[in-house]
Amino acid sequence: MSVIDDVTAELARLPGIGRKTATRLAFFLLRQPKGSIERLAGALQALGTRVAPCAVCGAWSEVNPCEICADPRRDTGTVCVVEEASDIGAVERTGEYRGVYHVLGGHLSPLDGVGPDDLRIAQLKARVANGSGVREVILATNPSMEGEVTATYVRGVLGPLGVRVTRIALGLPVGGDLEYADGLTIARALTARREMAE
Amino acid sequence: MSVIDDVTAELARLPGIGRKTATRLAFFLLRQPKGSIERLAGALQALGTRVAPCAVCGAWSEVNPCEICADPRRDTGTVCVVEEASDIGAVERTGEYRGVYHVLGGHLSPLDGVGPDDLRIAQLKARVANGSGVREVILATNPSMEGEVTATYVRGVLGPLGVRVTRIALGLPVGGDLEYADGLTIARALTARREMAE
Repeated sequence: MSVIDDVTAELARLPGIGRKTATRLAFFLLRQPKGSIERLAGALQALGTRVAPCAVCGAWSEVNPCEICADPRRDTGTVCVVEEASDIGAVERTGEYRGVYHVLGGHLSPLDGVGPDDLRIAQLKARVANGSGVREVILATNPSMEGEVTATYVRGVLGPLGVRVTRIALGLPVGGDLEYADGLTIARALTARREMAE
Repeated sequence: MSVIDDVTAELARLPGIGRKTATRLAFFLLRQPKGSIERLAGALQALGTRVAPCAVCGAWSEVNPCEICADPRRDTGTVCVVEEASDIGAVERTGEYRGVYHVLGGHLSPLDGVGPDDLRIAQLKARVANGSGVREVILATNPSMEGEVTATYVRGVLGPLGVRVTRIALGLPVGGDLEYADGLTIARALTARREMAE
């Protein structure tokens, strides 16, 4: 197999990149100025060798514990539980959250063989139980069927610990359109309606 | 800048890959089994170091001259002229062509500052002129405005040499791209090639 075929095959493993796109990308790279390919290869090499999960929260990081867990200005008494490390960026960009995180590494999915032991649920329990002063656990798993099931399961696991457990609010997205929202979202938004001050 | 940001920035340079897709790809790679990232990085490293243009035809190759130019079963008397090295694969997959190739490296595009000297036209002229026994030059530039202009220009350059010059048939959709055409269309277009007046 030629090097071009090799690169094409590796790129085609990426989600959303088919065989033709992979070929196009390989030839695009060959046409770039000297050093471009090496920069990409070097960045990927660093990704594979220098990035590992944070021992505390499970987020991908070059340092251990990660920058958020090690930041003294973060409130370690509030733990936001997310499915994937990539979800942290979405919450961080709001600039509204000053607590820390806990990455589950996915959601419960019996059909795919993903049970509680495959997620970092035991680590979350230990983190909340060991007297580290956690006051609140915010369950920010996805608003999908699997995310809801996972949130419900984690809520049950944390029950005996007496910690406050909350679920991120479900409703209509800001800037969304009621006409195009799905029925389940509207139903949730109706159920979670709140008093409106005059 | 973190390694993840670095990989994201490098991936986002690729055509068709935006910032969000690049981030998604970086996290996808981190979740893959051990060694996956290294394989991709290694393949790219090899692409950057081991692949270079063939001195004869200009195609990307790990050997020089390339496998097609070095193949004694290929008819070196017929030269198929293409815009990009990536177009060769499209013609090869038809299984209909037994000649060799010449890569121009693009098309004439005065607005983008691409003139005759930026393409491998002088090399083509030398290749046809130097008594190497080239009987026919098939112009297989893209069936686009620029491809037609380029074909016409090359035809003019080859005129004094007295070689037979043909143009790949317009069975290809006008405005299309050779790289993405299906094999049957390319095969038909090759068979129906016609003489090109000076």
